[in-house]
Amino acid sequence: MTSTTSSPRLVTVAACQLGPVHLADSRQDVLKRMLSLLEQAAQQGAKLAVFPELAFTTFFPRYLLAERDLDQYFDVEDPSKGGIEQSPNIKPLFDRASALGIDVYVGYAERTIQKYGTHVDYNSSVYYSANANKIIGKYRKVHLPGTVEPRTEPGAVQQLEKRYFRPGDLGFPAFRAPGLVEGALKKSSGIYNATQSTGKGDPIIGMLICNDRRWPEAWRVYGLQGMEILCCGYNTTAFPTTATGHQLDLTPEAAEEMVLLHHKLSCQGNSYMNACFSINVAKTGAEDGNPLVGGTIIVHPLGHIIKEAQTKEDELVVATIDLADCHRPKNTVFAFEKHRRPEHYHLILDRTGVIEPDLL
Amino acid sequence: MTSTTSSPRLVTVAACQLGPVHLADSRQDVLKRMLSLLEQAAQQGAKLAVFPELAFTTFFPRYLLAERDLDQYFDVEDPSKGGIEQSPNIKPLFDRASALGIDVYVGYAERTIQKYGTHVDYNSSVYYSANANKIIGKYRKVHLPGTVEPRTEPGAVQQLEKRYFRPGDLGFPAFRAPGLVEGALKKSSGIYNATQSTGKGDPIIGMLICNDRRWPEAWRVYGLQGMEILCCGYNTTAFPTTATGHQLDLTPEAAEEMVLLHHKLSCQGNSYMNACFSINVAKTGAEDGNPLVGGTIIVHPLGHIIKEAQTKEDELVVATIDLADCHRPKNTVFAFEKHRRPEHYHLILDRTGVIEPDLL
Repeated sequence: MTSTTSSPRLVTVAACQLGPVHLADSRQDVLKRMLSLLEQAAQQGAKLAVFPELAFTTFFPRYLLAERDLDQYFDVEDPSKGGIEQSPNIKPLFDRASALGIDVYVGYAERTIQKYGTHVDYNSSVYYSANANKIIGKYRKVHLPGTVEPRTEPGAVQQLEKRYFRPGDLGFPAFRAPGLVEGALKKSSGIYNATQSTGKGDPIIGMLICNDRRWPEAWRVYGLQGMEILCCGYNTTAFPTTATGHQLDLTPEAAEEMVLLHHKLSCQGNSYMNACFSINVAKTGAEDGNPLVGGTIIVHPLGHIIKEAQTKEDELVVATIDLADCHRPKNTVFAFEKHRRPEHYHLILDRTGVIEPDLL
Repeated sequence: MTSTTSSPRLVTVAACQLGPVHLADSRQDVLKRMLSLLEQAAQQGAKLAVFPELAFTTFFPRYLLAERDLDQYFDVEDPSKGGIEQSPNIKPLFDRASALGIDVYVGYAERTIQKYGTHVDYNSSVYYSANANKIIGKYRKVHLPGTVEPRTEPGAVQQLEKRYFRPGDLGFPAFRAPGLVEGALKKSSGIYNATQSTGKGDPIIGMLICNDRRWPEAWRVYGLQGMEILCCGYNTTAFPTTATGHQLDLTPEAAEEMVLLHHKLSCQGNSYMNACFSINVAKTGAEDGNPLVGGTIIVHPLGHIIKEAQTKEDELVVATIDLADCHRPKNTVFAFEKHRRPEHYHLILDRTGVIEPDLL
């Protein structure tokens, strides 16, 4: 891995930003909006469409809900009835993707049925490959923000992901998406050339969800698997809160500017430090009066923003990226094998929280 | 650690940016410039002065040098003659700091004498405490960029840190700097109150050097020790190079803009993700025609730049920071003990370089 040039490996990707989804919006209506974005993405030549976190519904962790009211937000993974791709609420998206020849990353609330009818819930995403004609990647959000118990102070904003979901148990498994690269499928007899070293390899994909993007450990675990494209959907409240769930004393404009700065520093900084593209896709706008930031961005491995959404509505952000752009940084400044020193990183595993140094 | 407010803990800090140091410049002349910056910093009320990496000399790793020509760039740590603070080239800086009551971070080339007269060399920094009247922190650069063997292609730019220095062997040890916080020394009988929980604790300091700032592992190891202020000096070439050491095909302006973006994403992103201040200090300008970027910045724990250098010359950047600003992010979005999941981070230690996922 020391050559300095490599053949172009072009992929056209689409960030499918969604505007608000209100409590009263039906799953069918949201699906229709998503199918419309998918259709436009395919028309513009995209081979990958990235949708937000919990794309199909409103961001329900902002509400304290009884068990029976929660059910409607989940898609059930029932081994006896097939995987999530059989869910009537999701299947049409993958069917259409398959017909259009476009891959899909999408976030949803996953309910897994256990023995004796109990269930375990996750904030999940899947990667559906049109070429493989199935789901080839699955991720469960590891870094859940918020609290288990509702905040009780008057005026507190709720963030109940830790109540409704279990932290992801799948780690950060990178995978290859077959046939994404332009020309990869034009090889003799339709068999694509999947050899990375020829510069025609299938892209290495990683998935994160929302708050995960602020955690460099998550990006690095993917980076150590050679990740070239990171897909990340999010629902991010447009103002920072205190530990009691109150808004900071800022104007709405200043608050939103701060949230967007944090979003961009996370996505741009971690893309740069792992020499990968990232496709970061918002559900945005005010959901029943609760503002979510926009800022859907496609980021280059050199850290700059390639393209950014202009609205807080359903909006397509399409770019043709060249995966060969990962090559130089992955083989110079971020040639991990030459520069990393894991012998000095052990605290990252040895402790979860902070232990401060002794007083002098 | 769940309260949302904390008393102010004010510290005035100074980034002491240095303009170029040419081959012909004497150590004495450079020291004079540094003493002048130190003097001004103290006049402006600073309690901490941060100088660049390898501050006392030109950035000599850009040259292929014979052993005998290298000697002049190193300060010798000889156990039989006392520590580096006894070096005649450095001692006047610490003596003056002591008299002015101001702490100093400074980078230098460290030569440690071993048995039988051999030596081991590091790219190091020390933290001199005026209150403790001694060096209380030492760091040896872990992430050395460049190559061991000189690049042989015509026109190649050399970066020989891997040749001249051994990777740091001290890890990332955070420490407390006594008496830095305003009012901390005004307690009864001159004994400062070092109890963190009262909001008057001695600041927790981390040190990095140049290329280290691009490595999130380094910041995180400090973050897990509760770091509040990260000091980092650098000499960063003002254009990116290929693996063969050639400049990318960019205008000088575009090249410098890219390098500054990477610098800022690293410093701002990692300060944000670890909820700490950072003081990032350049040696800058053209050293014998070799351009180094500027961009000396003091960064807030919320990721924004508090203050930035305006020149590529010797320049002081002073700011009064409130360490209490670390409190909210360290106890909400980055409350590590609540959100981190080390069980999924093991690849960070298990492998040094990339292992790509199998082909499908």
